[in-house]
Amino acid sequence: MKHMFKYSLLILITLLAACSTDKGSGETSAQSESVFPLGEILISDNFSGTVWLQMMGAEDSTLHARFGNVTFEPKARTNWHSHPGGQVLFITEGQGYYQAKGQPAQILRKGDHVEIPRNVVHWHGAGPDTEFAHIAISLNSDEGGAVWLGPVTDEEYEGLNN
Amino acid sequence: MKHMFKYSLLILITLLAACSTDKGSGETSAQSESVFPLGEILISDNFSGTVWLQMMGAEDSTLHARFGNVTFEPKARTNWHSHPGGQVLFITEGQGYYQAKGQPAQILRKGDHVEIPRNVVHWHGAGPDTEFAHIAISLNSDEGGAVWLGPVTDEEYEGLNN
Repeated sequence: MKHMFKYSLLILITLLAACSTDKGSGETSAQSESVFPLGEILISDNFSGTVWLQMMGAEDSTLHARFGNVTFEPKARTNWHSHPGGQVLFITEGQGYYQAKGQPAQILRKGDHVEIPRNVVHWHGAGPDTEFAHIAISLNSDEGGAVWLGPVTDEEYEGLNN
Repeated sequence: MKHMFKYSLLILITLLAACSTDKGSGETSAQSESVFPLGEILISDNFSGTVWLQMMGAEDSTLHARFGNVTFEPKARTNWHSHPGGQVLFITEGQGYYQAKGQPAQILRKGDHVEIPRNVVHWHGAGPDTEFAHIAISLNSDEGGAVWLGPVTDEEYEGLNN
């Protein structure tokens, strides 16, 4: 009986370890989930904070589209800008914002999309505490590339939730 | 001592149940992961098998794009077809195929994308044992909608891996 008690204690400890390992690995995989390739850190004056970019195409210029995967670390964001041909964003990870000049910011989550009209001045980027990733498809790119303006200031960004 | 042994046996059984529940829920969430809305079952002669469609836009017709989320159950697929303005697919779930007429089929997985040139006859759909979901963006849609042709026959589909 004494031996059986020792053995059952040993199994208890083993099971406790096994359970905590399961939970640990689960959390890790959830945090590091990214649907499309991260690419490289983007070195550009048109963005604030750490942003990763994987350009994808279009290889065929007659498609009149440019697209890639953009990943923003918390607080990272584009400058104010506009697209002559418009753009669509498909959110694949995390939570962030889209704001058209003069409008309230929209909160965007994984599974959302945003249609950005031609020539509307706007910005997009991550929330204060969360990574944010989207596919960006610039449309009618034969009509010209993005028109870049100034940064979204800390006052503008921090004022979003006030 | 006898009591302690009984109690430890009781805890053992409880822990075994807890561990198996953890694993169970983990598997379920992995299998049912879908980034974008599933939408409704698509009733169309241009597809084979069970296909779900969530059309998303463009609301603004001046963007010259049509896009939505398409989810294919195993073996489900489009008919052969082409797009006058071209199309891009971004794979968000599972594994499937893209095949241009006269070319070998490409295997597509979550995180891949495909650029479909203007007027190239092709089809896309799920693998034999896996669901498959992609965002589809039809470009330059002011130049006309998809041109639909005949089904991908079971012989064509089953011959892919031979």
